[in-house]
Amino acid sequence: MSSHPVTVTVVGASGYTGAELLRHLAHHPHIELSAVYAHSKAGLTLGEVFPALAHSELTLEPFDASHVAERAQVAFLALPHGAAQGAADALRARGVTVVDLSADHRFNDPAQYAEIYGAPHLHPERLEEAVYGLPELFRNQLRRANLIACPGCYPTSVALGVSPAFSAGLTATHEVIADCKSGVSGAGRAAKELSLFSERAEAMQGYATLNHRHAPEMEATLGRVVAQRAGQPAEGQWARGVVKVHFSPHLTPMSRGILSTLYLRLKPGVDERAVREAYEEVYQAEPFVTLLPQGRHVTTLAVRGTNRCHLDLTVQGDMLVVHSAIDNLGKGAASQAIQCLNIRLGLPETAGLQSIGVYP
Amino acid sequence: MSSHPVTVTVVGASGYTGAELLRHLAHHPHIELSAVYAHSKAGLTLGEVFPALAHSELTLEPFDASHVAERAQVAFLALPHGAAQGAADALRARGVTVVDLSADHRFNDPAQYAEIYGAPHLHPERLEEAVYGLPELFRNQLRRANLIACPGCYPTSVALGVSPAFSAGLTATHEVIADCKSGVSGAGRAAKELSLFSERAEAMQGYATLNHRHAPEMEATLGRVVAQRAGQPAEGQWARGVVKVHFSPHLTPMSRGILSTLYLRLKPGVDERAVREAYEEVYQAEPFVTLLPQGRHVTTLAVRGTNRCHLDLTVQGDMLVVHSAIDNLGKGAASQAIQCLNIRLGLPETAGLQSIGVYP
Amino acid sequence: MSSHPVTVTVVGASGYTGAELLRHLAHHPHIELSAVYAHSKAGLTLGEVFPALAHSELTLEPFDASHVAERAQVAFLALPHGAAQGAADALRARGVTVVDLSADHRFNDPAQYAEIYGAPHLHPERLEEAVYGLPELFRNQLRRANLIACPGCYPTSVALGVSPAFSAGLTATHEVIADCKSGVSGAGRAAKELSLFSERAEAMQGYATLNHRHAPEMEATLGRVVAQRAGQPAEGQWARGVVKVHFSPHLTPMSRGILSTLYLRLKPGVDERAVREAYEEVYQAEPFVTLLPQGRHVTTLAVRGTNRCHLDLTVQGDMLVVHSAIDNLGKGAASQAIQCLNIRLGLPETAGLQSIGVYP
Amino acid sequence: MSSHPVTVTVVGASGYTGAELLRHLAHHPHIELSAVYAHSKAGLTLGEVFPALAHSELTLEPFDASHVAERAQVAFLALPHGAAQGAADALRARGVTVVDLSADHRFNDPAQYAEIYGAPHLHPERLEEAVYGLPELFRNQLRRANLIACPGCYPTSVALGVSPAFSAGLTATHEVIADCKSGVSGAGRAAKELSLFSERAEAMQGYATLNHRHAPEMEATLGRVVAQRAGQPAEGQWARGVVKVHFSPHLTPMSRGILSTLYLRLKPGVDERAVREAYEEVYQAEPFVTLLPQGRHVTTLAVRGTNRCHLDLTVQGDMLVVHSAIDNLGKGAASQAIQCLNIRLGLPETAGLQSIGVYP
Repeated sequence: MSSHPVTVTVVGASGYTGAELLRHLAHHPHIELSAVYAHSKAGLTLGEVFPALAHSELTLEPFDASHVAERAQVAFLALPHGAAQGAADALRARGVTVVDLSADHRFNDPAQYAEIYGAPHLHPERLEEAVYGLPELFRNQLRRANLIACPGCYPTSVALGVSPAFSAGLTATHEVIADCKSGVSGAGRAAKELSLFSERAEAMQGYATLNHRHAPEMEATLGRVVAQRAGQPAEGQWARGVVKVHFSPHLTPMSRGILSTLYLRLKPGVDERAVREAYEEVYQAEPFVTLLPQGRHVTTLAVRGTNRCHLDLTVQGDMLVVHSAIDNLGKGAASQAIQCLNIRLGLPETAGLQSIGVYP
Repeated sequence: MSSHPVTVTVVGASGYTGAELLRHLAHHPHIELSAVYAHSKAGLTLGEVFPALAHSELTLEPFDASHVAERAQVAFLALPHGAAQGAADALRARGVTVVDLSADHRFNDPAQYAEIYGAPHLHPERLEEAVYGLPELFRNQLRRANLIACPGCYPTSVALGVSPAFSAGLTATHEVIADCKSGVSGAGRAAKELSLFSERAEAMQGYATLNHRHAPEMEATLGRVVAQRAGQPAEGQWARGVVKVHFSPHLTPMSRGILSTLYLRLKPGVDERAVREAYEEVYQAEPFVTLLPQGRHVTTLAVRGTNRCHLDLTVQGDMLVVHSAIDNLGKGAASQAIQCLNIRLGLPETAGLQSIGVYP
Repeated sequence: MSSHPVTVTVVGASGYTGAELLRHLAHHPHIELSAVYAHSKAGLTLGEVFPALAHSELTLEPFDASHVAERAQVAFLALPHGAAQGAADALRARGVTVVDLSADHRFNDPAQYAEIYGAPHLHPERLEEAVYGLPELFRNQLRRANLIACPGCYPTSVALGVSPAFSAGLTATHEVIADCKSGVSGAGRAAKELSLFSERAEAMQGYATLNHRHAPEMEATLGRVVAQRAGQPAEGQWARGVVKVHFSPHLTPMSRGILSTLYLRLKPGVDERAVREAYEEVYQAEPFVTLLPQGRHVTTLAVRGTNRCHLDLTVQGDMLVVHSAIDNLGKGAASQAIQCLNIRLGLPETAGLQSIGVYP
Repeated sequence: MSSHPVTVTVVGASGYTGAELLRHLAHHPHIELSAVYAHSKAGLTLGEVFPALAHSELTLEPFDASHVAERAQVAFLALPHGAAQGAADALRARGVTVVDLSADHRFNDPAQYAEIYGAPHLHPERLEEAVYGLPELFRNQLRRANLIACPGCYPTSVALGVSPAFSAGLTATHEVIADCKSGVSGAGRAAKELSLFSERAEAMQGYATLNHRHAPEMEATLGRVVAQRAGQPAEGQWARGVVKVHFSPHLTPMSRGILSTLYLRLKPGVDERAVREAYEEVYQAEPFVTLLPQGRHVTTLAVRGTNRCHLDLTVQGDMLVVHSAIDNLGKGAASQAIQCLNIRLGLPETAGLQSIGVYP
């Protein structure tokens, strides 16, 4: 570990994911924030953009890749999908390590990206360089990654809840029903009628049922888990068609948090004890994932503001139900991005990320 | 329709279900509230017990069956399970029509009641008399019922969402995954740590996963739907073992509302259009059930304070996902009880129940 | 009372105030809704615009004054200030009775309107015709009003809480501190960052401190109360400079409701009993205003969805504190507009408005 | 600064204040938590009591003063008032430094304590020893305090908002109206009907108007500020009757946070610039207090989970309105207690307390 802190910037710092990056980075012992960029609010101080940073005089600047390269070794991109790919390419060309929180580098296959996001990828060669930023599954690859593609919030939650069942071969099929409940911040800070307080309070509501962009991302990630168990090359072409996720997301009247309820069919003879042991084996050494003992249930409130994932599980007959709780802006976005960078930099993986849930 | 209003009382009037009964009854054109009873808060006025009834001077009295029989033709029982069966028996013995909102008369089989609720039923002979108060399924039986057993809130939501698929024979099996999200008022007005504002805000949480008392109630009700389609006697012994409901309830940070997300497997060849037509046929004449057009999603906010049920449905391959939204205190309890009584009394079924959701 | 229902329309029906008008009008016994107008969402059905009206096929039309005049005797204007004045003039010219829920006709003095709203009034002659729609203060004038200027939500809450103290001459001065807490729906359905769920949850915040447009409206209304007590002509030029309201509004994490906490200084010798008697005398015959007994406090939850105002009061030394609770969309806007129209039409004042608060 | 961490315990660790102490202490660089005590939940692990501490195996023990003295140099008491005084005395007798978060040692005068809390103080001699734990006002006294009496949440909020106006002699009188809005966690974790989610959502409500125990505490604290300015001995008998606080608290539908709106009358000739300069002078060097620039308003969301206090101010004529926002469990309780201990131990005052508000 160097005695010099690593210099980083946040590009797209005016949204909720940007705010969460800044909150976690503020007291990271080995990282120094050297600049912040945002298009629409350039010229404003962080104090003007974020009430919680009232005391900060750091000013948002318009993004310029050369400018970033002069200032920082690492750039976090908290940009919308589509906007991140150009910035990532320009920064990589200048030698900056990129941690992309958008969807732009999550698929290795440009055709799949184009199909799901409705436009061709402008820098398809970068997709090969990208490493999917889910440390519990791809920690080794992250150690040498220069372009980290952070997972979506829902895929993080689902992959952590399902992968031990698949990697231990506990299930009858590679099919899962994922009923996910997300806080409203998942829709971002953009002013939309759907995200208004008065529309969302007392309003539990499904959306994009069986038709959300995160489903193929979940299938690709879990497909790699299945491939790995089968001895197939997990790092090559990501699996497609191997795993089926029936994904049904819901807007929940809360600001933060994702609770995923995951329904899986067990192989004959697999009982709750076997499932529990498999999950414990996978997660016992993980600093941010905790399986609750039998009889206790996870809650989004317990992981609020943290990089943690809490899991519980129930078995009845061949039905396995797993609850997976994360903070969509934390483990589902900003703090997981920092966890990835810690790994990349050879820092302690928990550096700057040990906070406990703000409860109540 | 008589020109004299029917006299009714509410027994157990100090909880949330009681409050909702009083709210709806206040302006019912054909019903007159003659007395209100509550054990723990006897002697207080409604104005002291319910802030929304600040202007009411009606006083809560301790329950006495003879006293009720002198005052009213009908009694709504908003008592805890276990406490309702004695009151119901005493009132029936005195000729009072009983609308029981507890779980005490929902099962025809005393053994099943004892198994689920952990104590023998004290008046098992009353179970034969009871009619299950879900008008959309059992309207005819309700016309002559003197003891109406109102369904649980979750079972109402699930039965309305699933029964058309079963009655039209659309599914490959009689199995359903019911992922249900309930407002906190479902836990009642009792002072419990779990129900505190600070425990529930920002807290999405599962509970009683695959182990909730409402699952066998759902299975019995849907079993009757299957029996009816098969030409079996739907009114005799309720089915048990025919339908399997994998029921996973969740506490949601809102006061009111249940959103049930229901996962069913379709028979080969059944497409979305066929499903939509089946649901439309069942519900087109129902005054309180509305199937939303394709592309729109139900929300609990839209049915808040009403007797309405909103449904949406999505098909992808053989997977059918239905969302069913009700107000747990409304269609899930108090206003459905009034709907049942309207039917029993030969009144217009919508009398006193036409309110629109308090949105936003 | 005629056997023919009165035909009404709602202009600007796609916002929250419009929704609340439609909800209350749906079952009004003497009023028939004949058309609905909205600029931006013309062509959509109410079911598409409001989830709670999912069952409605009524279509929003672009506003046209002649078209309205053919269809309806009365038009409710739920338009932004500035937009209502032209519509009102065109409709009045065609003989339509206008109930304006905007700020456009609340001041009799065109200069004061221009000063506060930053633009000259386009039809200043209409200001003389307008009657301020606060029934508890101006009931008699409303009986013959053809242009009703409904009060703002905050001014309704403050005027009902303060006026008995001024009309009975209880206070040392005509000065009041009004600390008001409003639900987020007060900011309307427009998509604004400030109104997002994630910005407002857990966020109590002041705004427009001592600098809100509703302060001069409060001062004008209360000035008329003072004038009336002094035997001055209350209906002529509204008072200005007589009453001072130090008005400090706050955004509160709830959808609906205004709680105003009002601080007044009593004359020497005026005790709590005298204050309570004065308030009781003013409000005992009012169908929608209730003063709670000593020791109980009003809550916005108790008046949610209603046309009611609840008050409580506390005296200590010469300090009088009054809490006034209303629903900002109800008594603060839509249902009060209907109350005014009931008066104008000679209908029972409570027709269609007797609902009880949706509690919890 | 010693290289050995200071050992501390938390007594009464099962409530919300206890949880917040544990959250902040978990990563304090110079403090080590050696034991946790709680009466009612003794024998449970922290993981069982607090979902956010799911990973903790530390077990709650029944309180015993000798046991504490063996294990720790410092004890935080998060007990109810009345219960803390005995524990404090026993711990002080054994040489343990006590940081008391209850009300038991906030008044120097035993008679005043008895009058307000309704029972004589059992160890009145300890009141002389106690130092009031508001660092911004009494930092020097805290450096040598062995019994620290942490302020109430409301008094912290009000004292920080008002004291610069009094210490700079800006006001016409020593009178203030304090309209305070508190999150529900202020009522603690006890299961009470008033604190239920369904009672508090959408419910803004006053309580204890002009009759709350925190008013005399505010008057005593601000009285010392006035005394100090007047050259009177600020550390002797606390002032009583010098300052008048008209205190009106309100329950707000949020978990955490206090927003105090403070109304003060300025001396003739004092304008906004003079007020702003006085506040800036007082707070510019304070690490946890920030005065927002003109035109911006504080929000409770911005200080959520932190030890920070945000202030804004507005002047119109002789009226000064100050908004003061804190987290009631943070600066209003747990983190302020740690700030006091940091001072007492000669540690950096911000050690362990630099977190930024969890926004959104």
